[in-house]
Amino acid sequence: MARAALVAGDWGTSHLRLFLCADDGSLLARADGPGVAQARSACADVLDRLLQPWSREHGDLPVVLCGMVGSTVGWTLAPYVPCPAGIEDLAHGCVALRDERLHIVPGVSCRNRLGAPDVMRGEETQIVGAMQLAADLARGRQLLCLPGTHTKWVLPEDGRVVELLTAPTGELFALLREHSILVGDAATASGADTVTDGAGYQRGLSAAAAEPQADLLHRLFECRSRRLMGELAATDSAAFLSGLLIGNDVAGALKLFASARVPKRVPVIGAPGLGALYARALAAQGREAPMLEGTAAALAGLVRLQQLLPEHSLTHGH
Amino acid sequence: MARAALVAGDWGTSHLRLFLCADDGSLLARADGPGVAQARSACADVLDRLLQPWSREHGDLPVVLCGMVGSTVGWTLAPYVPCPAGIEDLAHGCVALRDERLHIVPGVSCRNRLGAPDVMRGEETQIVGAMQLAADLARGRQLLCLPGTHTKWVLPEDGRVVELLTAPTGELFALLREHSILVGDAATASGADTVTDGAGYQRGLSAAAAEPQADLLHRLFECRSRRLMGELAATDSAAFLSGLLIGNDVAGALKLFASARVPKRVPVIGAPGLGALYARALAAQGREAPMLEGTAAALAGLVRLQQLLPEHSLTHGH
Repeated sequence: MARAALVAGDWGTSHLRLFLCADDGSLLARADGPGVAQARSACADVLDRLLQPWSREHGDLPVVLCGMVGSTVGWTLAPYVPCPAGIEDLAHGCVALRDERLHIVPGVSCRNRLGAPDVMRGEETQIVGAMQLAADLARGRQLLCLPGTHTKWVLPEDGRVVELLTAPTGELFALLREHSILVGDAATASGADTVTDGAGYQRGLSAAAAEPQADLLHRLFECRSRRLMGELAATDSAAFLSGLLIGNDVAGALKLFASARVPKRVPVIGAPGLGALYARALAAQGREAPMLEGTAAALAGLVRLQQLLPEHSLTHGH
Repeated sequence: MARAALVAGDWGTSHLRLFLCADDGSLLARADGPGVAQARSACADVLDRLLQPWSREHGDLPVVLCGMVGSTVGWTLAPYVPCPAGIEDLAHGCVALRDERLHIVPGVSCRNRLGAPDVMRGEETQIVGAMQLAADLARGRQLLCLPGTHTKWVLPEDGRVVELLTAPTGELFALLREHSILVGDAATASGADTVTDGAGYQRGLSAAAAEPQADLLHRLFECRSRRLMGELAATDSAAFLSGLLIGNDVAGALKLFASARVPKRVPVIGAPGLGALYARALAAQGREAPMLEGTAAALAGLVRLQQLLPEHSLTHGH
């Protein structure tokens, strides 16, 4: 068995995913913990508790963490690296803690094509990893889709992120499904499974694509009116809403990035279930959408960033 | 003092507004009660309790009610009148109860220009009243804006409603302000006043208008990112969101109805505060937006519909 060499962690708002890695980057063990929203000021303690069994066996290992752990609500602030941001910029922007045995990866900021500031934190590491796993992503111009609570559309050029654009598609879906009369009780009760239901989702996608002039705001009521008129089953309405939202996100992003002349191929990096929904929406717009699993990408990114860390980091957190 | 001749009621989901009217339609007294969401199966009792003091003084008066009281969750179902729907169609569609001493006004349904079914209930009566108060609205083609939890864009032609389109703008605003991290705690804590704040609202309007290609979904994150980057005060973020949503609603609706060649003048019928926000957004798009107060319009509509009721109604509720 390969020797343990590194602990890599993807520490977001709601989850900590911790990986024990060998010196060749392969995965030896995995542990899960609470997100920073729950850990709050106890991030150090949460980490130490999870590290204990690994430390007993392998000694004190270097740790590299990405995600919201580097935000103002996390452990310590790792300031955003402005675009264009390449892998070396990210490695240089890592904040060192604990005598440089622990590093936190910074997020990335930009001014997007709508003139608004935009940011990501965690996704930059998945993108670094995706470029390790699929080297062609580091060549030329690409449009990447990282779906989630806040979906990120990211434009790298020769491996450096030059722009990103956020759509809170997942958050809007959760809010509407949980609280809105547009979707209704039956959809809420039947839970997450309805979202992947083929027919309802496809109908939502088609509705979103039917009239490209229509803003999302003028289509949302359709979830309710079609049910009222007996044209949509109550149990299909969450899936319909999901299709409407993701269809709008995809069509809107492709329209906004049309002037960037991106390839027909739009890789999707993220959780397989949600990623498949985005891939279907991209396919409906005539795009190839190869998928990369998000956790594997994050792990590959963390391992790669650790290799690039300066022997003595320039920045120090407290 | 004029003789009491009619009780008119606007009975929505969250409020009942009851009016005692003279034979010339003037208002003699007013009472408020719970909406149908609270009254549920006790609508009859709720009404009788409010009518009692008036009945003692003026005897048994005819009653006409509009709004969600005529929905499946109200007192009795008054089925939607399909478009094109004129004032006579609405009068004929009224459902009679209590030996034809009480009538419930039906809602209106259509298939809108996006190919989706659409409905309204309560707004049709405000439109009838608006045409009484401003006779020019009953001539030629008009685009009317009735802002609210579910904003209605309504197209009447020579006084008959031929189409409507719903945008759940108010509901989305309330959901995002209350539950989303996009707006944040400061905005929630500072309450409704922030929404009418001039600067934040104007900035949201401008953002919505800046890039007509951008869907709402790709602008929403701006509420958060501008705060993160110190470009927007936390106390301005709810007003900014309001401007973004209403700006999108107005620009989107004008775009969708452009092919209907509606007049430059887009009357706004509704509550003065929200109406003023819509009027500002319409003015920013180069439209004149005269305002009509919604409650006065509803009252005028109920009085007019009562005058048109057939002496013996054809339909009977239970």
